[in-house]
Amino acid sequence: MCVDKVTRRSLIFGAAATAAAVATPAPAQAAPGRSGLQDLTHVVTPSFPAFEPGEEPSRRTATTVEKDGYYMQEWTILEHFGTHVDAPAHFTAGGRTSEELSLSELITPAVVIDIARRAAREPDTTVTVADLVAYERKHDRIPRNAAVLMFSGWAAKAGDAAAYRGTDSAGKLHFPGFSVDACEWLLTKRGIRSLGVDTLSIDPGISAGFETHLALTGADRYGVENLAGLDRIPRHGATLTVGLIPYLDGSGGQARVFARW
Amino acid sequence: MCVDKVTRRSLIFGAAATAAAVATPAPAQAAPGRSGLQDLTHVVTPSFPAFEPGEEPSRRTATTVEKDGYYMQEWTILEHFGTHVDAPAHFTAGGRTSEELSLSELITPAVVIDIARRAAREPDTTVTVADLVAYERKHDRIPRNAAVLMFSGWAAKAGDAAAYRGTDSAGKLHFPGFSVDACEWLLTKRGIRSLGVDTLSIDPGISAGFETHLALTGADRYGVENLAGLDRIPRHGATLTVGLIPYLDGSGGQARVFARW
Repeated sequence: MCVDKVTRRSLIFGAAATAAAVATPAPAQAAPGRSGLQDLTHVVTPSFPAFEPGEEPSRRTATTVEKDGYYMQEWTILEHFGTHVDAPAHFTAGGRTSEELSLSELITPAVVIDIARRAAREPDTTVTVADLVAYERKHDRIPRNAAVLMFSGWAAKAGDAAAYRGTDSAGKLHFPGFSVDACEWLLTKRGIRSLGVDTLSIDPGISAGFETHLALTGADRYGVENLAGLDRIPRHGATLTVGLIPYLDGSGGQARVFARW
Repeated sequence: MCVDKVTRRSLIFGAAATAAAVATPAPAQAAPGRSGLQDLTHVVTPSFPAFEPGEEPSRRTATTVEKDGYYMQEWTILEHFGTHVDAPAHFTAGGRTSEELSLSELITPAVVIDIARRAAREPDTTVTVADLVAYERKHDRIPRNAAVLMFSGWAAKAGDAAAYRGTDSAGKLHFPGFSVDACEWLLTKRGIRSLGVDTLSIDPGISAGFETHLALTGADRYGVENLAGLDRIPRHGATLTVGLIPYLDGSGGQARVFARW
Protein backbone atom coordinates (compact mmCIF):
# COMPACT_ATOMS: atom_id res chain seq x y z
CA MET A 1 0.00 0.00 0.00
CA CYS A 2 1.38 3.32 -1.04
CA VAL A 3 0.54 5.10 2.20
CA ASP A 4 2.31 2.51 4.37
CA LYS A 5 5.33 2.59 2.12
CA VAL A 6 5.54 6.35 2.36
CA THR A 7 5.34 6.16 6.12
CA ARG A 8 7.97 3.46 6.37
CA ARG A 9 10.30 5.30 4.03
CA SER A 10 9.74 8.49 6.02
CA LEU A 11 11.03 6.70 9.11
CA ILE A 12 14.17 5.70 7.23
CA PHE A 13 14.90 8.90 5.28
CA GLY A 14 13.13 11.50 7.44
CA ALA A 15 13.53 15.10 6.42
CA ALA A 16 16.51 14.29 4.22
CA ALA A 17 14.29 12.72 1.55
CA THR A 18 13.35 14.96 -1.36
CA ALA A 19 10.20 15.12 -3.38
CA ALA A 20 12.21 15.25 -6.61
CA ALA A 21 13.28 11.60 -6.63
CA VAL A 22 10.90 9.01 -8.01
CA ALA A 23 8.42 7.52 -5.55
CA THR A 24 10.08 9.07 -2.53
CA PRO A 25 7.99 10.48 0.30
CA ALA A 26 7.58 14.17 0.93
CA PRO A 27 10.13 15.82 3.17
CA ALA A 28 8.52 16.50 6.56
CA GLN A 29 9.77 20.05 6.49
CA ALA A 30 11.34 22.38 3.95
CA ALA A 31 15.02 22.15 4.84
CA PRO A 32 17.50 25.00 4.37
CA GLY A 33 19.39 24.66 1.10
CA ARG A 34 16.86 22.20 -0.36
CA SER A 35 14.37 23.61 -2.80
CA GLY A 36 11.54 21.97 -4.66
CA LEU A 37 8.72 22.66 -7.10
CA GLN A 38 5.68 20.39 -7.27
CA ASP A 39 2.65 20.64 -9.54
CA LEU A 40 -0.58 19.93 -7.64
CA THR A 41 -2.95 20.15 -10.64
CA HIS A 42 -4.88 17.38 -12.39
CA VAL A 43 -5.10 17.48 -16.20
CA VAL A 44 -8.46 18.94 -17.33
CA THR A 45 -10.10 16.02 -19.13
CA PRO A 46 -13.72 14.89 -19.50
CA SER A 47 -12.70 11.59 -17.89
CA PHE A 48 -11.85 13.25 -14.54
CA PRO A 49 -14.64 12.69 -11.96
CA ALA A 50 -17.16 15.52 -11.65
CA PHE A 51 -18.94 16.08 -8.33
CA GLU A 52 -22.11 14.75 -9.96
CA PRO A 53 -21.98 12.28 -12.87
CA GLY A 54 -22.99 14.13 -16.02
CA GLU A 55 -21.35 17.40 -14.95
CA GLU A 56 -18.14 16.61 -16.87
CA PRO A 57 -16.98 19.23 -19.41
CA SER A 58 -17.36 18.77 -23.14
CA ARG A 59 -14.95 19.94 -25.82
CA ARG A 60 -14.97 20.39 -29.56
CA THR A 61 -12.16 20.88 -32.03
CA ALA A 62 -12.84 24.41 -33.31
CA THR A 63 -10.03 24.55 -35.92
CA THR A 64 -7.18 22.33 -37.13
CA VAL A 65 -3.69 23.01 -38.49
CA GLU A 66 -4.50 20.95 -41.59
CA LYS A 67 -7.68 22.83 -42.48
CA ASP A 68 -7.34 26.27 -40.88
CA GLY A 69 -3.59 26.70 -40.33
CA TYR A 70 -3.96 26.58 -36.54
CA TYR A 71 -5.48 24.25 -33.95
CA MET A 72 -7.93 25.26 -31.19
CA GLN A 73 -10.35 23.50 -28.86
CA GLU A 74 -13.44 25.03 -27.24
CA TRP A 75 -14.51 23.86 -23.76
CA THR A 76 -17.88 23.95 -22.05
CA ILE A 77 -16.95 23.66 -18.39
CA LEU A 78 -18.37 24.34 -14.94
CA GLU A 79 -16.27 26.55 -12.68
CA HIS A 80 -16.06 23.65 -10.18
CA PHE A 81 -14.60 20.90 -12.36
CA GLY A 82 -11.09 19.51 -11.90
CA THR A 83 -8.51 21.26 -9.72
CA HIS A 84 -10.39 24.45 -8.85
CA VAL A 85 -11.19 27.17 -6.35
CA ASP A 86 -14.42 27.73 -4.41
CA ALA A 87 -14.70 31.52 -4.07
CA PRO A 88 -16.64 32.96 -1.11
CA ALA A 89 -19.62 33.57 -3.46
CA HIS A 90 -19.93 29.80 -4.14
CA PHE A 91 -21.85 29.24 -0.89
CA THR A 92 -22.32 32.74 0.51
CA ALA A 93 -24.73 35.16 -1.18
CA GLY A 94 -22.96 38.50 -1.64
CA GLY A 95 -19.55 36.88 -1.11
CA ARG A 96 -16.54 37.83 -3.21
CA THR A 97 -16.19 36.33 -6.68
CA SER A 98 -13.11 34.90 -8.43
CA GLU A 99 -11.86 38.10 -10.02
CA GLU A 100 -12.02 39.82 -6.60
CA LEU A 101 -9.49 37.46 -4.99
CA SER A 102 -6.13 39.21 -5.16
CA LEU A 103 -2.90 37.57 -6.14
CA SER A 104 -1.49 38.13 -2.65
CA GLU A 105 -4.36 36.04 -1.21
CA LEU A 106 -3.56 33.28 -3.71
CA ILE A 107 0.12 32.90 -2.69
CA THR A 108 0.35 31.70 0.91
CA PRO A 109 2.23 29.43 3.32
CA ALA A 110 1.11 25.80 3.00
CA VAL A 111 0.70 23.14 5.67
CA VAL A 112 -0.27 19.54 4.92
CA ILE A 113 -2.38 17.49 7.36
CA ASP A 114 -1.80 13.81 6.53
CA ILE A 115 -4.78 11.60 7.38
CA ALA A 116 -4.11 9.04 4.62
CA ARG A 117 -3.65 6.00 6.89
CA ARG A 118 -6.92 6.63 8.69
CA ALA A 119 -8.80 7.56 5.48
CA ALA A 120 -7.73 4.28 3.85
CA ARG A 121 -9.66 2.45 6.61
CA GLU A 122 -12.46 5.01 7.17
CA PRO A 123 -13.45 6.92 4.02
CA ASP A 124 -15.91 9.06 6.02
CA THR A 125 -13.21 10.38 8.33
CA THR A 126 -12.52 14.10 8.71
CA VAL A 127 -9.65 16.34 9.72
CA THR A 128 -10.39 17.13 13.38
CA VAL A 129 -9.14 19.74 15.87
CA ALA A 130 -7.14 16.90 17.47
CA ASP A 131 -5.37 16.36 14.13
CA LEU A 132 -4.44 20.05 14.03
CA VAL A 133 -3.15 20.06 17.61
CA ALA A 134 -1.11 16.91 16.85
CA TYR A 135 0.25 18.56 13.69
CA GLU A 136 1.41 21.62 15.63
CA ARG A 137 3.03 19.46 18.31
CA LYS A 138 4.98 17.52 15.67
CA HIS A 139 5.84 20.36 13.28
CA ASP A 140 5.20 24.00 14.12
CA ARG A 141 2.39 26.46 14.72
CA ILE A 142 0.15 26.89 11.67
CA PRO A 143 1.08 30.37 10.37
CA ARG A 144 -1.42 33.19 9.73
CA ASN A 145 -2.89 33.30 6.20
CA ALA A 146 -1.94 29.67 5.61
CA ALA A 147 -3.49 27.26 3.14
CA VAL A 148 -4.29 24.16 5.23
CA LEU A 149 -4.25 21.13 2.92
CA MET A 150 -5.70 17.70 3.67
CA PHE A 151 -3.71 14.78 2.23
CA SER A 152 -6.03 11.77 2.25
CA GLY A 153 -4.48 9.69 -0.55
CA TRP A 154 -7.58 10.22 -2.71
CA ALA A 155 -5.77 11.66 -5.76
CA ALA A 156 -4.54 8.14 -6.57
CA LYS A 157 -8.17 7.10 -7.16
CA ALA A 158 -8.94 9.86 -9.70
CA GLY A 159 -8.71 7.45 -12.64
CA ASP A 160 -11.76 5.57 -11.30
CA ALA A 161 -14.74 7.92 -10.81
CA ALA A 162 -16.72 5.45 -8.66
CA ALA A 163 -13.78 4.92 -6.31
CA TYR A 164 -12.98 8.66 -6.17
CA ARG A 165 -16.60 9.50 -5.29
CA GLY A 166 -16.91 6.44 -3.04
CA THR A 167 -20.50 5.98 -4.15
CA ASP A 168 -22.32 3.25 -2.20
CA SER A 169 -25.31 1.16 -3.28
CA ALA A 170 -27.68 3.84 -1.94
CA GLY A 171 -25.92 6.51 -4.06
CA LYS A 172 -24.27 8.18 -1.03
CA LEU A 173 -20.72 9.56 -1.38
CA HIS A 174 -17.83 8.47 0.82
CA PHE A 175 -14.61 10.46 0.86
CA PRO A 176 -12.83 12.43 3.62
CA GLY A 177 -12.97 16.18 4.26
CA PHE A 178 -12.55 18.85 6.93
CA SER A 179 -14.85 18.78 9.96
CA VAL A 180 -16.63 22.07 10.54
CA ASP A 181 -15.02 22.23 14.02
CA ALA A 182 -11.54 22.04 12.50
CA CYS A 183 -12.49 24.71 9.94
CA GLU A 184 -13.80 27.07 12.63
CA TRP A 185 -10.75 26.46 14.85
CA LEU A 186 -8.45 27.32 11.93
CA LEU A 187 -10.46 30.45 11.09
CA THR A 188 -10.69 31.83 14.62
CA LYS A 189 -7.48 30.57 16.29
CA ARG A 190 -5.06 30.63 13.36
CA GLY A 191 -6.46 33.18 10.89
CA ILE A 192 -5.99 30.92 7.87
CA ARG A 193 -6.54 31.96 4.25
CA SER A 194 -7.86 28.75 2.68
CA LEU A 195 -8.56 25.04 2.97
CA GLY A 196 -7.46 22.57 0.30
CA VAL A 197 -8.29 18.90 -0.28
CA ASP A 198 -7.31 16.03 -2.61
CA THR A 199 -11.00 15.05 -2.87
CA LEU A 200 -14.11 16.45 -4.58
CA SER A 201 -15.15 18.63 -1.64
CA ILE A 202 -13.80 20.29 1.51
CA ASP A 203 -16.81 18.74 3.30
CA PRO A 204 -16.70 14.94 3.62
CA GLY A 205 -18.76 13.09 1.00
CA ILE A 206 -21.42 12.09 3.52
CA SER A 207 -22.11 15.73 4.47
CA ALA A 208 -25.69 16.74 3.71
CA GLY A 209 -25.47 20.39 4.77
CA PHE A 210 -22.05 21.51 3.46
CA GLU A 211 -21.28 22.99 6.89
CA THR A 212 -17.55 23.40 6.22
CA HIS A 213 -18.22 25.23 2.93
CA LEU A 214 -20.66 27.53 4.74
CA ALA A 215 -18.23 28.29 7.59
CA LEU A 216 -15.27 28.89 5.25
CA THR A 217 -16.99 31.01 2.60
CA GLY A 218 -19.00 32.83 5.28
CA ALA A 219 -15.64 34.00 6.68
CA ASP A 220 -14.63 35.38 3.24
CA ARG A 221 -12.12 32.59 2.76
CA TYR A 222 -11.75 30.21 -0.20
CA GLY A 223 -11.35 26.49 -0.82
CA VAL A 224 -9.26 24.47 -3.29
CA GLU A 225 -10.54 21.05 -4.37
CA ASN A 226 -9.21 18.08 -6.37
CA LEU A 227 -5.55 18.70 -5.58
CA ALA A 228 -2.90 16.21 -6.73
CA GLY A 229 0.60 15.49 -5.44
CA LEU A 230 0.12 16.48 -1.79
CA ASP A 231 2.30 13.48 -0.81
CA ARG A 232 5.21 15.14 -2.63
CA ILE A 233 5.45 18.44 -0.73
CA PRO A 234 6.79 19.28 2.74
CA ARG A 235 4.28 19.11 5.57
CA HIS A 236 5.52 22.53 6.68
CA GLY A 237 7.49 25.34 5.06
CA ALA A 238 6.27 25.29 1.43
CA THR A 239 4.57 28.19 -0.36
CA LEU A 240 1.35 27.46 -2.25
CA THR A 241 0.46 29.32 -5.45
CA VAL A 242 -3.17 29.09 -6.62
CA GLY A 243 -3.21 30.32 -10.24
CA LEU A 244 -6.97 30.95 -10.34
CA ILE A 245 -8.53 32.02 -13.66
CA PRO A 246 -10.25 35.34 -12.85
CA TYR A 247 -13.71 34.59 -14.30
CA LEU A 248 -16.10 37.56 -14.21
CA ASP A 249 -18.60 37.04 -11.36
CA GLY A 250 -16.89 33.67 -10.86
CA SER A 251 -18.12 31.33 -8.13
CA GLY A 252 -14.63 29.85 -8.33
CA GLY A 253 -12.81 28.37 -11.26
CA GLN A 254 -10.04 26.28 -12.71
CA ALA A 255 -6.60 26.96 -11.25
CA ARG A 256 -3.01 25.89 -11.84
CA VAL A 257 -1.82 25.09 -8.34
CA PHE A 258 1.74 24.35 -7.28
CA ALA A 259 4.04 24.37 -4.26
CA ARG A 260 7.58 25.73 -3.92
CA TRP A 261 10.00 25.35 -1.06
CA MET B 1 -1.33 60.07 -22.93
CA CYS B 2 -0.52 57.34 -20.49
CA VAL B 3 2.62 56.18 -22.26
CA ASP B 4 4.19 59.64 -22.31
CA LYS B 5 3.36 60.17 -18.65
CA VAL B 6 5.04 56.93 -17.68
CA THR B 7 8.12 57.86 -19.67
CA ARG B 8 8.28 61.31 -18.13
CA ARG B 9 7.87 59.92 -14.63
CA SER B 10 10.57 57.34 -15.35
CA LEU B 11 12.99 60.18 -16.04
CA ILE B 12 12.17 61.72 -12.68
CA PHE B 13 12.01 58.61 -10.48
CA GLY B 14 14.18 56.20 -12.45
CA ALA B 15 14.90 52.83 -10.89
CA ALA B 16 13.93 54.06 -7.42
CA ALA B 17 10.22 54.02 -8.29
CA THR B 18 8.26 50.94 -7.28
CA ALA B 19 5.40 49.24 -9.05
CA ALA B 20 3.43 49.08 -5.81
CA ALA B 21 2.51 52.77 -5.64
CA VAL B 22 -0.45 54.00 -7.67
CA ALA B 23 0.28 55.11 -11.24
CA THR B 24 4.04 54.89 -10.85
CA PRO B 25 6.19 53.52 -13.65
CA ALA B 26 7.92 50.16 -13.56
CA PRO B 27 11.38 50.02 -12.02
CA ALA B 28 13.92 49.61 -14.82
CA GLN B 29 15.55 46.77 -12.96
CA ALA B 30 14.73 44.59 -9.96
CA ALA B 31 16.77 46.25 -7.24
CA PRO B 32 18.24 44.36 -4.27
CA GLY B 33 15.99 44.61 -1.24
CA ARG B 34 12.97 45.69 -3.27
CA SER B 35 10.40 43.04 -4.03
CA GLY B 36 7.20 43.20 -5.97
CA LEU B 37 4.27 41.12 -7.17
CA GLN B 38 2.23 42.17 -10.21
CA ASP B 39 -0.75 40.44 -11.75
CA LEU B 40 -0.55 40.41 -15.57
CA THR B 41 -3.96 38.80 -16.22
CA HIS B 42 -7.11 40.33 -17.70
CA VAL B 43 -10.46 39.36 -16.14
CA VAL B 44 -12.21 36.66 -18.24
CA THR B 45 -15.34 38.42 -19.46
CA PRO B 46 -17.38 38.16 -22.68
CA SER B 47 -16.70 41.89 -23.21
CA PHE B 48 -12.94 41.35 -23.63
CA PRO B 49 -11.93 41.48 -27.33
CA ALA B 50 -11.64 38.09 -29.05
CA PHE B 51 -9.25 37.68 -31.99
CA GLU B 52 -12.30 37.50 -34.27
CA PRO B 53 -15.57 39.21 -33.37
CA GLY B 54 -18.07 36.50 -32.44
CA GLU B 55 -15.42 34.28 -30.80
CA GLU B 56 -16.17 35.67 -27.32
CA PRO B 57 -17.06 33.12 -24.61
CA SER B 58 -20.59 32.63 -23.36
CA ARG B 59 -21.63 31.78 -19.82
CA ARG B 60 -24.73 30.58 -18.05
CA THR B 61 -25.68 30.53 -14.39
CA ALA B 62 -25.86 26.80 -13.66
CA THR B 63 -27.03 27.05 -10.01
CA THR B 64 -27.75 29.81 -7.46
CA VAL B 65 -27.43 30.05 -3.68
CA GLU B 66 -31.10 31.02 -3.42
CA LYS B 67 -32.44 28.05 -5.37
CA ASP B 68 -29.76 25.35 -5.08
CA GLY B 69 -27.75 26.31 -1.98
CA TYR B 70 -24.64 27.10 -4.04
CA TYR B 71 -23.74 29.28 -7.01
CA MET B 72 -21.93 28.11 -10.18
CA GLN B 73 -21.39 29.40 -13.70
CA GLU B 74 -20.61 27.33 -16.79
CA TRP B 75 -18.40 28.78 -19.53
CA THR B 76 -18.12 27.93 -23.21
CA ILE B 77 -14.70 29.27 -24.12
CA LEU B 78 -12.00 28.91 -26.76
CA GLU B 79 -8.52 28.05 -25.50
CA HIS B 80 -7.25 31.31 -27.07
CA PHE B 81 -9.53 33.86 -25.39
CA GLY B 82 -8.28 36.41 -22.83
CA THR B 83 -4.85 36.11 -21.22
CA HIS B 84 -3.73 32.76 -22.58
CA VAL B 85 -0.95 30.51 -23.83
CA ASP B 86 -0.29 29.32 -27.38
CA ALA B 87 1.17 25.81 -26.98
CA PRO B 88 3.51 24.47 -29.69
CA ALA B 89 0.56 22.43 -31.09
CA HIS B 90 -1.41 25.64 -31.84
CA PHE B 91 0.52 26.20 -35.09
CA THR B 92 2.73 23.13 -35.41
CA ALA B 93 1.17 19.76 -36.23
CA GLY B 94 2.55 17.19 -33.77
CA GLY B 95 3.72 19.92 -31.39
CA ARG B 96 3.34 19.60 -27.63
CA THR B 97 -0.03 20.36 -26.08
CA SER B 98 -0.89 22.33 -22.91
CA GLU B 99 -0.72 19.47 -20.44
CA GLU B 100 2.73 18.55 -21.77
CA LEU B 101 4.28 21.91 -20.80
CA SER B 102 5.97 21.38 -17.43
CA LEU B 103 5.77 23.76 -14.53
CA SER B 104 9.51 24.44 -14.77
CA GLU B 105 8.99 25.71 -18.35
CA LEU B 106 6.21 28.00 -17.11
CA ILE B 107 8.32 29.79 -14.46
CA THR B 108 11.13 31.73 -16.16
CA PRO B 109 13.15 34.94 -16.09
CA ALA B 110 11.23 37.83 -17.69
CA VAL B 111 12.52 40.70 -19.80
CA VAL B 112 10.31 43.53 -21.07
CA ILE B 113 10.95 45.22 -24.42
CA ASP B 114 9.22 48.62 -24.33
CA ILE B 115 8.10 49.84 -27.76
CA ALA B 116 5.10 51.82 -26.47
CA ARG B 117 6.21 55.26 -27.73
CA ARG B 118 6.79 53.97 -31.25
CA ALA B 119 3.62 51.82 -31.22
CA ALA B 120 1.50 54.85 -30.26
CA ARG B 121 2.56 56.47 -33.56
CA GLU B 122 2.86 53.29 -35.71
CA PRO B 123 0.42 50.54 -34.73
CA ASP B 124 1.94 48.17 -37.32
CA THR B 125 5.39 48.36 -35.77
CA THR B 126 7.23 45.25 -34.55
CA VAL B 127 9.92 44.37 -32.05
CA THR B 128 13.08 44.16 -34.19
CA VAL B 129 16.55 42.71 -33.68
CA ALA B 130 17.74 46.32 -33.25
CA ASP B 131 15.33 46.70 -30.33
CA LEU B 132 16.81 43.59 -28.69
CA VAL B 133 20.39 44.78 -29.19
CA ALA B 134 19.44 48.18 -27.73
CA TYR B 135 17.77 46.46 -24.79
CA GLU B 136 20.90 44.45 -24.01
CA ARG B 137 23.10 47.54 -24.29
CA LYS B 138 20.90 49.41 -21.80
CA HIS B 139 20.08 46.57 -19.38
CA ASP B 140 21.79 43.20 -19.55
CA ARG B 141 22.09 40.11 -21.74
CA ILE B 142 18.77 38.33 -22.21
CA PRO B 143 19.14 35.17 -20.08
CA ARG B 144 18.62 31.62 -21.35
CA ASN B 145 15.05 30.29 -21.02
CA ALA B 146 13.67 33.82 -20.70
CA ALA B 147 10.16 35.00 -21.43
CA VAL B 148 10.63 38.01 -23.72
CA LEU B 149 7.63 40.32 -23.28
CA MET B 150 6.60 43.16 -25.60
CA PHE B 151 5.11 46.19 -23.83
CA SER B 152 3.26 48.19 -26.49
CA GLY B 153 0.71 50.01 -24.31
CA TRP B 154 -2.12 48.03 -25.92
CA ALA B 155 -3.62 46.67 -22.66
CA ALA B 156 -5.04 50.16 -21.98
CA LYS B 157 -7.25 49.77 -25.08
CA ALA B 158 -8.80 46.44 -24.00
CA GLY B 159 -12.06 48.11 -22.99
CA ASP B 160 -12.66 49.10 -26.65
CA ALA B 161 -12.57 46.06 -28.94
CA ALA B 162 -12.28 48.11 -32.16
CA ALA B 163 -9.31 50.08 -30.77
CA TYR B 164 -7.65 46.94 -29.36
CA ARG B 165 -7.97 45.14 -32.70
CA GLY B 166 -7.14 48.34 -34.63
CA THR B 167 -9.60 47.34 -37.34
CA ASP B 168 -9.48 49.66 -40.39
CA SER B 169 -12.22 50.36 -42.93
CA ALA B 170 -11.06 47.37 -45.01
CA GLY B 171 -11.34 45.06 -41.97
CA LYS B 172 -7.55 44.71 -41.56
CA LEU B 173 -6.08 44.55 -38.05
CA HIS B 174 -3.46 46.99 -36.76
CA PHE B 175 -1.54 46.24 -33.57
CA PRO B 176 2.15 45.60 -32.88
CA GLY B 177 3.90 42.24 -32.48
CA PHE B 178 7.26 40.50 -32.77
CA SER B 179 9.00 40.43 -36.16
CA VAL B 180 9.95 36.94 -37.28
CA ASP B 181 13.61 38.08 -37.42
CA ALA B 182 13.52 39.08 -33.75
CA CYS B 183 11.85 35.78 -32.84
CA GLU B 184 14.48 33.75 -34.70
CA TRP B 185 17.33 35.79 -33.20
CA LEU B 186 15.94 35.14 -29.70
CA LEU B 187 15.53 31.41 -30.40
CA THR B 188 18.95 30.82 -31.91
CA LYS B 189 21.16 33.40 -30.17
CA ARG B 190 19.55 33.52 -26.71
CA GLY B 191 17.74 30.19 -26.27
CA ILE B 192 14.54 31.80 -24.98
CA ARG B 193 11.56 29.90 -23.58
CA SER B 194 8.63 32.06 -24.68
CA LEU B 195 7.37 35.31 -26.21
CA GLY B 196 4.65 37.38 -24.56
CA VAL B 197 2.62 40.35 -25.80
CA ASP B 198 0.01 42.81 -24.51
CA THR B 199 -1.92 42.43 -27.79
CA LEU B 200 -4.09 39.74 -29.41
CA SER B 201 -1.19 38.02 -31.17
CA ILE B 202 2.59 37.61 -31.09
CA ASP B 203 2.50 38.41 -34.83
CA PRO B 204 1.56 42.01 -35.69
CA GLY B 205 -2.10 42.47 -36.69
CA ILE B 206 -1.23 43.02 -40.34
CA SER B 207 0.54 39.66 -40.61
CA ALA B 208 -1.11 37.37 -43.14
CA GLY B 209 1.10 34.32 -42.65
CA PHE B 210 1.62 34.17 -38.85
CA GLU B 211 5.38 33.78 -39.45
CA THR B 212 6.32 34.51 -35.81
CA HIS B 213 3.85 31.91 -34.53
CA LEU B 214 5.27 29.36 -36.97
CA ALA B 215 8.89 30.07 -36.00
CA LEU B 216 8.16 30.01 -32.25
CA THR B 217 5.93 26.93 -32.08
CA GLY B 218 8.12 25.15 -34.66
CA ALA B 219 10.97 25.50 -32.15
CA ASP B 220 8.81 23.84 -29.42
CA ARG B 221 8.40 27.15 -27.61
CA TYR B 222 5.18 28.81 -26.45
CA GLY B 223 3.55 32.25 -26.61
CA VAL B 224 1.52 34.27 -24.09
CA GLU B 225 -1.04 36.75 -25.44
CA ASN B 226 -3.27 39.51 -24.02
CA LEU B 227 -1.03 40.32 -21.07
CA ALA B 228 -1.87 43.25 -18.78
CA GLY B 229 0.30 45.36 -16.48
CA LEU B 230 3.61 45.05 -18.33
CA ASP B 231 4.27 48.74 -17.51
CA ARG B 232 4.33 47.80 -13.82
CA ILE B 233 7.17 45.25 -13.77
CA PRO B 234 10.96 45.67 -14.00
CA ARG B 235 12.42 45.58 -17.50
CA HIS B 236 14.98 43.08 -16.23
CA GLY B 237 15.24 40.80 -13.18
CA ALA B 238 11.63 39.68 -12.60
CA THR B 239 10.42 36.08 -12.67
CA LEU B 240 7.34 35.28 -14.75
CA THR B 241 4.86 32.60 -13.69
CA VAL B 242 2.42 31.36 -16.35
CA GLY B 243 -0.31 29.45 -14.49
CA LEU B 244 -1.59 27.59 -17.57
CA ILE B 245 -4.68 25.40 -17.19
CA PRO B 246 -3.52 21.94 -18.34
CA TYR B 247 -6.29 21.17 -20.84
CA LEU B 248 -6.12 17.67 -22.33
CA ASP B 249 -4.75 17.91 -25.91
CA GLY B 250 -4.80 21.69 -25.37
CA SER B 251 -3.69 24.00 -28.15
CA GLY B 252 -3.05 26.49 -25.34
CA GLY B 253 -5.41 27.83 -22.74
CA GLN B 254 -6.32 30.37 -20.14
CA ALA B 255 -3.56 31.20 -17.68
CA ARG B 256 -3.11 33.25 -14.53
CA VAL B 257 0.10 35.13 -15.24
CA PHE B 258 2.11 37.21 -12.79
CA ALA B 259 5.57 38.60 -12.16
CA ARG B 260 7.62 38.60 -8.95
CA TRP B 261 10.89 40.34 -8.23
